[in-house]
Amino acid sequence: MKKISLAEPNIGNKEWQYLKECLDSGWVSSSGSFVKRFEKFVSKKTKIKHATAVVNGTSALHLSLYVLGIRETNEVLVPSLSFIAPINTIRYLGAVPVFMDCNEHHTMDITKTLEFLNNETFMKAGSCYNKKSKKRIAAVLPVHTWGNPVEVNQLYSICRKKNIKIVEDASESLGSLYQDNKGNMVHTGKIADIACLSFNGNKIVTSGGGGMILTNKKKDSDLVNYYSTQAKDDPFYYKHNNVGFNFRLTNIQAALGLAQVQSLPSFKAKKKKIYKIYDQSFKDIPGLELIKPAKNTRSNYWMTVLKVNKKIFGNSRDQIIKKLLNAGIECRPVWYPNHLQKPFKSFQSYKVQKTQSEVKSCICLPSSTNLSKTDISKVVSTISRMQK
Amino acid sequence: MKKISLAEPNIGNKEWQYLKECLDSGWVSSSGSFVKRFEKFVSKKTKIKHATAVVNGTSALHLSLYVLGIRETNEVLVPSLSFIAPINTIRYLGAVPVFMDCNEHHTMDITKTLEFLNNETFMKAGSCYNKKSKKRIAAVLPVHTWGNPVEVNQLYSICRKKNIKIVEDASESLGSLYQDNKGNMVHTGKIADIACLSFNGNKIVTSGGGGMILTNKKKDSDLVNYYSTQAKDDPFYYKHNNVGFNFRLTNIQAALGLAQVQSLPSFKAKKKKIYKIYDQSFKDIPGLELIKPAKNTRSNYWMTVLKVNKKIFGNSRDQIIKKLLNAGIECRPVWYPNHLQKPFKSFQSYKVQKTQSEVKSCICLPSSTNLSKTDISKVVSTISRMQK
Repeated sequence: MKKISLAEPNIGNKEWQYLKECLDSGWVSSSGSFVKRFEKFVSKKTKIKHATAVVNGTSALHLSLYVLGIRETNEVLVPSLSFIAPINTIRYLGAVPVFMDCNEHHTMDITKTLEFLNNETFMKAGSCYNKKSKKRIAAVLPVHTWGNPVEVNQLYSICRKKNIKIVEDASESLGSLYQDNKGNMVHTGKIADIACLSFNGNKIVTSGGGGMILTNKKKDSDLVNYYSTQAKDDPFYYKHNNVGFNFRLTNIQAALGLAQVQSLPSFKAKKKKIYKIYDQSFKDIPGLELIKPAKNTRSNYWMTVLKVNKKIFGNSRDQIIKKLLNAGIECRPVWYPNHLQKPFKSFQSYKVQKTQSEVKSCICLPSSTNLSKTDISKVVSTISRMQK
Repeated sequence: MKKISLAEPNIGNKEWQYLKECLDSGWVSSSGSFVKRFEKFVSKKTKIKHATAVVNGTSALHLSLYVLGIRETNEVLVPSLSFIAPINTIRYLGAVPVFMDCNEHHTMDITKTLEFLNNETFMKAGSCYNKKSKKRIAAVLPVHTWGNPVEVNQLYSICRKKNIKIVEDASESLGSLYQDNKGNMVHTGKIADIACLSFNGNKIVTSGGGGMILTNKKKDSDLVNYYSTQAKDDPFYYKHNNVGFNFRLTNIQAALGLAQVQSLPSFKAKKKKIYKIYDQSFKDIPGLELIKPAKNTRSNYWMTVLKVNKKIFGNSRDQIIKKLLNAGIECRPVWYPNHLQKPFKSFQSYKVQKTQSEVKSCICLPSSTNLSKTDISKVVSTISRMQK
């Protein structure tokens, strides 16, 4: 029985061709030409000026926070509902997360975040401090969960006023758009000081593993390039005036990534189609609904997420998961809330309520771009038959 | 004019075949089968029980020190003569390096290191402390520079007695052998608690970029696997009881690495031949000599390094470098001493004297496995003609 996958890579002929070209050139490590081509392509696509390819999305976030000066005396506002990686990167630097709740789109609740910033902080010497911890809030790190854009424009003014950096985790949102401050639709990450992409195997575009750091500011981009290559002040005589990192992507990964990102329009179209079929199929079944992107945003529909009302539908989230897995259909619960994870539960969370109920009731459904209609029908019928 | 490279990858047909197989399987990220095959092959080759492939040599060292419990209250003994990466990894953890000198082979001076451990430390509650700083010396990190093995067996007893972990940086020494405590020739890394390999583009075997963590201890290997994959205690429900890292190698890199490591015997033979030709060519020229591996060790001759006595030869190291570069021959000075690098110069160094003079007088010569005899002759003649 062929297994139906959650989010597997879709590899075509171009991937094949670019990798051969890369091997034939002999340039397989980070100094090859595909790295530059990959970066330029993504920069052009997102219309964000500077792009630096790195080993993965985690290192992208780690380095972004680092070059923006986030250190152990700082706090970073971050959603509880997210994969654990962004929170880990805050901790690598010794900084502390303050957890925010999510909204119906599974992105950071902006209303509550603004409420926190307006009521729970004070300004001193041009910086914003947490009334409770007395620590400086140096950054906010919204995550475009499932490809659904956070409306970062609503945070922009207050963050500028309070001298708070914005780092967008766009790991899941390559191709997703939101409104900028003038109401134009722009690529997610465009408003941020720095935005990060992931090209992990399960993402809409993959380089096997990889990430990218995007910024409109040359100064920050220069710092990213410097610190991602072991901080070489004199590369020939090996003088290093700072502790750097080894974070650059290899040329073979970039060759794969470039071929993939050139297929982004077709991948996006397929993802949207998958979402629409699921949406049509479940919309008349009481107790089932999909997590939708916010109005005024355009999701890449990377992952379709189903929300189950057990009382109405008659079966629980976990019962559906069990049935799907038994039928050879890969599916996943939503990430466990970060503010409840063991390494973070001692840190502050601000009115995090919706997150817990969303996590308990949601399932990630198969969303691979190479799903067939038959595959989707099988997922739908397996779930529909459980209606009571 | 074809440029003669310092250490460029040598890519054959098998690399291509494995990469094609990897792409065709659709498994390009870290969960693919080539990762396991690559790890198993290296484990078998080195006769070290457990191997975990990671994104690069830097992350290998970082994670090794981490799982051995090195933290900000600790010190790590490390050679000043080395690429900066191992020192950076000590600093990532907030620990402090104590710099040791080098010997004529460019590896850590064991005599001085033993002298330091015997005279400059004291024991308290089963651990070893630095008399000067009062900090615990928790690890020693010898580097097998240029592929020349450090005689780690001479450190073994004292490290066991003083409860000091041994982490070998074998980034440059895949295929190099040293004597174990019984006098048997074994692969470098075998004596250590944990040893680290690098598969960077300039190494004897490359996976584009990559690294590997080797250990004979299952407990440590389990920790490496756990922490390198974001510390998943319940992978399905995303429970994480610790802060983890995203350090695993991708399957496409592993496919390349496996093909490469299967060619290690021929690469080693070529490297040795290159070294021998240089040695024959320079041995009768006064003021020139090669850096040799220690007796009782077998180097993989990854990099041939030439030492210039300016007074006798009549031209300086920098004059030779200039001449070589002008002739289209890539060459490099040796790394700037780490105890003099800006981020580290406030840290303790113990009688580091030879390192400075070695750094000033040495040149890395072209050592790529695909060098032709004509290439080598050109290097030799360019240098020989400078004799005064």
